[in-house]
Amino acid sequence: MEIFIEPIGKLVNEFSKLPGVGKKTAQRYAYKIIDMPEAEAKAFADAILGVKRKVRYCKVCGNFTEEDECAICKVREKNVICVVKEPKDVLAIEKLREFKGVYHVLHGVIDPLSGIGPNDIRIRELLARLQSGDVKEVIIATNPDVSGDATAMYLAKLIKPLDIKVTRLAHGIPVGSEIEYTDDVTLARAFVERNPL
Amino acid sequence: MEIFIEPIGKLVNEFSKLPGVGKKTAQRYAYKIIDMPEAEAKAFADAILGVKRKVRYCKVCGNFTEEDECAICKVREKNVICVVKEPKDVLAIEKLREFKGVYHVLHGVIDPLSGIGPNDIRIRELLARLQSGDVKEVIIATNPDVSGDATAMYLAKLIKPLDIKVTRLAHGIPVGSEIEYTDDVTLARAFVERNPL
Repeated sequence: MEIFIEPIGKLVNEFSKLPGVGKKTAQRYAYKIIDMPEAEAKAFADAILGVKRKVRYCKVCGNFTEEDECAICKVREKNVICVVKEPKDVLAIEKLREFKGVYHVLHGVIDPLSGIGPNDIRIRELLARLQSGDVKEVIIATNPDVSGDATAMYLAKLIKPLDIKVTRLAHGIPVGSEIEYTDDVTLARAFVERNPL
Repeated sequence: MEIFIEPIGKLVNEFSKLPGVGKKTAQRYAYKIIDMPEAEAKAFADAILGVKRKVRYCKVCGNFTEEDECAICKVREKNVICVVKEPKDVLAIEKLREFKGVYHVLHGVIDPLSGIGPNDIRIRELLARLQSGDVKEVIIATNPDVSGDATAMYLAKLIKPLDIKVTRLAHGIPVGSEIEYTDDVTLARAFVERNPL
């Protein structure tokens, strides 16, 4: 049953493709667009086309950029590299304003069940960067799940022989949460990674 | 602090304009667009431009249409008119597949506090339709709030002298809910509008 007229139905359908957006929400979004002044809707459409046209990946680290090299690679110290799965992880870390080094975006993690092996993600590019000899530490910031762990292990095995320190983000009880409500896996890991006081 | 590169920041900003969408959700949507194939993103942008270009209001009832007259006005019985605030209300009622008459979209309700009077909504157009003499009943389906009530009262006073039956959608306890949890205003209204068994 199609109760929308065709242009509205089409837009509802497009909005439904966004993560977590159902038919009802897509409908609300579509109505908002219909109510927008023409110029505002055009700016919206242009912004969508804009990201596809302008956003590329940094040829050094693989992060989002509009130029060949991203703003981070251009200015930061290059002796510490933080390895992440996706460009959005860069953003999450940058928000902290704590990390002063550069990044390396793998664009995926090793996941044999999905047929993704070491050659399918940007590991070769990472090794090439490490050949330069200036890098003192590689911080692995993949997610704490099966494929993130596997990727971290794999990278550690590759990088250690190069005489470069390899570290990984700590896992444990989130700050501000309670032990009682921490899930088993996290709590177990907090025990394993316990620190001397 | 702008941590996004410009095209991404722009798109996040556009998505933030949608109802109920915060910065974080807008960011997720933007990443989804970046990950889309070019053709898919273009289809999205086209759908946005499409609704602005193609969607008009029916010159008879004020509902969304691509032509002069909407699909409902073209084929339905015209002796019962259901008066609603917005085109999306038409959709909500159409989904029931119960109502067989036509609609009249006011495009707003009387709301003195916002400076919206009877001449700012499509009341004149409704009266013009009623002059034809074929209309037997006007069902007022404005929302059960202060301005919806006021608009219903105002319309009833205008239409009754034309010797046309005026009714309003019933208010009461939602089907499937419990009296214990029904809010006071609704419960009070259910008493006032009680029906003989």
